[in-house]
Amino acid sequence: MKEVRVGICGLGTVGGGTYNVLTRNAELIAGRAGSPIRISRVASRRRRDDIDLGDIPFSNDIFEVTRADDVDIVVELIGGYDVARELVLAAIENGKHVVTANKALIAVHGNEIFEAAAKQGVIVAYEAGVAGGIPVIKAIREGMAGNRIDWIAGIINGTGNYILTEMRAGRAFDEVLKEAQAKGYAEADPTFDVEGIDAAHKLTILASAGFGVPLQFERAYTEGISRITPYDIAHAELLGYRIKHLGIARRRENGIELRVHPTLVPQSHLIAQVDGVLNAVLVDGDAVGQTMYYGPGAGDEATASAVIADIVDVARSVAAESRQRVPYLGFEPDALENLEVLPMEDIQSAYYLRIQALDRPGVLAKVASILSEHGINIESIMQKESELEDGKIPVIILTHTVQERQINRAIEDLEALSDIQEKVVRIRAENFN
Amino acid sequence: MKEVRVGICGLGTVGGGTYNVLTRNAELIAGRAGSPIRISRVASRRRRDDIDLGDIPFSNDIFEVTRADDVDIVVELIGGYDVARELVLAAIENGKHVVTANKALIAVHGNEIFEAAAKQGVIVAYEAGVAGGIPVIKAIREGMAGNRIDWIAGIINGTGNYILTEMRAGRAFDEVLKEAQAKGYAEADPTFDVEGIDAAHKLTILASAGFGVPLQFERAYTEGISRITPYDIAHAELLGYRIKHLGIARRRENGIELRVHPTLVPQSHLIAQVDGVLNAVLVDGDAVGQTMYYGPGAGDEATASAVIADIVDVARSVAAESRQRVPYLGFEPDALENLEVLPMEDIQSAYYLRIQALDRPGVLAKVASILSEHGINIESIMQKESELEDGKIPVIILTHTVQERQINRAIEDLEALSDIQEKVVRIRAENFN
Repeated sequence: MKEVRVGICGLGTVGGGTYNVLTRNAELIAGRAGSPIRISRVASRRRRDDIDLGDIPFSNDIFEVTRADDVDIVVELIGGYDVARELVLAAIENGKHVVTANKALIAVHGNEIFEAAAKQGVIVAYEAGVAGGIPVIKAIREGMAGNRIDWIAGIINGTGNYILTEMRAGRAFDEVLKEAQAKGYAEADPTFDVEGIDAAHKLTILASAGFGVPLQFERAYTEGISRITPYDIAHAELLGYRIKHLGIARRRENGIELRVHPTLVPQSHLIAQVDGVLNAVLVDGDAVGQTMYYGPGAGDEATASAVIADIVDVARSVAAESRQRVPYLGFEPDALENLEVLPMEDIQSAYYLRIQALDRPGVLAKVASILSEHGINIESIMQKESELEDGKIPVIILTHTVQERQINRAIEDLEALSDIQEKVVRIRAENFN
Repeated sequence: MKEVRVGICGLGTVGGGTYNVLTRNAELIAGRAGSPIRISRVASRRRRDDIDLGDIPFSNDIFEVTRADDVDIVVELIGGYDVARELVLAAIENGKHVVTANKALIAVHGNEIFEAAAKQGVIVAYEAGVAGGIPVIKAIREGMAGNRIDWIAGIINGTGNYILTEMRAGRAFDEVLKEAQAKGYAEADPTFDVEGIDAAHKLTILASAGFGVPLQFERAYTEGISRITPYDIAHAELLGYRIKHLGIARRRENGIELRVHPTLVPQSHLIAQVDGVLNAVLVDGDAVGQTMYYGPGAGDEATASAVIADIVDVARSVAAESRQRVPYLGFEPDALENLEVLPMEDIQSAYYLRIQALDRPGVLAKVASILSEHGINIESIMQKESELEDGKIPVIILTHTVQERQINRAIEDLEALSDIQEKVVRIRAENFN
């Protein structure tokens, strides 16, 4: 039983967690992997006082790990784009297998990395990059291998979900964001999380693994949650919906939809019940139907759980002397389809509209006739006299499914009305059917 | 690219679904598997008019498939214990890999089957046996390989969950069961489903794959839902709980708890929201924390989805010329622990008690003092004068966590009171913390 030697690059949150769990559960993990997993090297910008590395060689030079003879798997946990890319390509060049938790790296440089890895016949595994400890890449690439996957929808950013959950109590976005920062749930610069960039990285990877298409992060649409108000959250609830920041990928005949934005989901759907910092990914396959994978999307040991699952996968494959048993994106390279990401105007969705209309006779009729002219059917409409303020009353509308193009044209016409002097609020809605 | 040849034994619900999905998604599946998957033989008691087998050889003798030279994987979808056991052992003896959806077979004869397969160096895969289309065996054996799994709790019988869901509207068990039978959700003889035997088969497998212990179905405790009343469901709801028929496996220092019974779960927990025929499995690992896997637990194509995932796994491994890459129970044979299943009196749980007491002064004090004598602390107690009937008032109690032994002794003492002339209703409760 040959041991498998792991070099850890990066000793931050996830690096520390990986070190601790690999050490604590060493015997159990060997029993599962079929080989002992030994941490042979650790490299990081600085040592950590709270982690006892024993006699494991430590270096400040992460590139040393990619060259070391006593390393079979390079575990990249430094994050970021450029240095991580260099590190991973150097590891591959030197014939090392790679395990990474870096979604930005895979979403942006994945095509290049997988091509290099295929040439060298090494494994690149990235389960920890998507939804932290939830084994959703495995579920998609392996557990649903018999399915044509039709769509994927996920709460894949814990910070955003925490903020939206707290806002249900009527609190404003800015206030909750500050609290999230104080609690350590949000970064000092929250852009990546609240504007949907982090979620778009993960969604890009999910879509490629699910549909068998190349990674196309630069084509992903992102819309953040910073403009969501407690008012809209409350009115969505009155309509029987909840606002979640979803990443949605949907396969269409002529391309794929790839989009992150605030979305109304039915309160009765399980994904509406996923609160706080937790993550969940819904996957719909033509054979299995809807499945959902739920758990912690971040955290030191939760993410380490996914990193180690990948290490065990490599160890099991290495022992079996195989090459990458599961293709990088779940499909063999020549089975990848060149489906393009569709422009947002081509996507189909239902829409929540909030229209601040002047309290004049006939406004409702004008709104309804504009929607009708654009072929938009209304599912619900709400207007309460009691909400009259400054001479304006909000009209809340939930539409049936239409093309985004239709809604945009209708909104242009609505905003041209003299009775409507504010921007129309537009939030997409999904019924998952 | 060598093709992988599959022989399907059994052309019932799951066999038909497997045939249809493998045929419909053949190209996509080949793209994932790295090899074309060809159905080379089908055998079943009778042909099906609604399935066009084309020029695939059909036989009424399923054992022919285990002997055929043109079969790499025998797919056992006939169900039951004895013939299925013979079939699978014959396939293994002939050097075939085996994929099965048969939980009863694995739970009861799994140890023997895995031993035979290990000797022959063939794969035996059984994802479809547990929770239908949900890839939970993969999540546990692979996705959580870095974790010490502490407990597993699942809604793993759709029939039972459907009945309990409908009973929340105040309907009686018998009435809902009849309706479920009419809709095809329940068998004519519903014993396997409503008495927890089917769930115990699945739980046995989950526990062994999670904890690394031999299969011990004969030690599993089962208690059905036939004695659950709408009254208790309503009162559990008043306490903030929902009654679910759960399979629970928990690792203790001296053994494992392995038990299927009606259980109160907090309404706020995601698993309480899993309604109707759907399944969900909660898995708690020391690194990742709680994860949940949700989806359809039965159905032709949903179960086929899991069967095909296993076929693709075998194809990927065969192409890599490996032996069973993932050990049968997730742990290498010499890493299995001989943990025994604990007697039910040793398990720990909270309890819901319903005591029909005569409306006499001092009864509540007597009840409280008996519980206290047995070291049982009360979390909630409810008694409503308005529920007085025939001189009796129900006392509803939710306890803190205690050993089942304590509760049983206390119930004996309670039932010995002259004020209590009926059996005490006792339902276990879990808070998942």
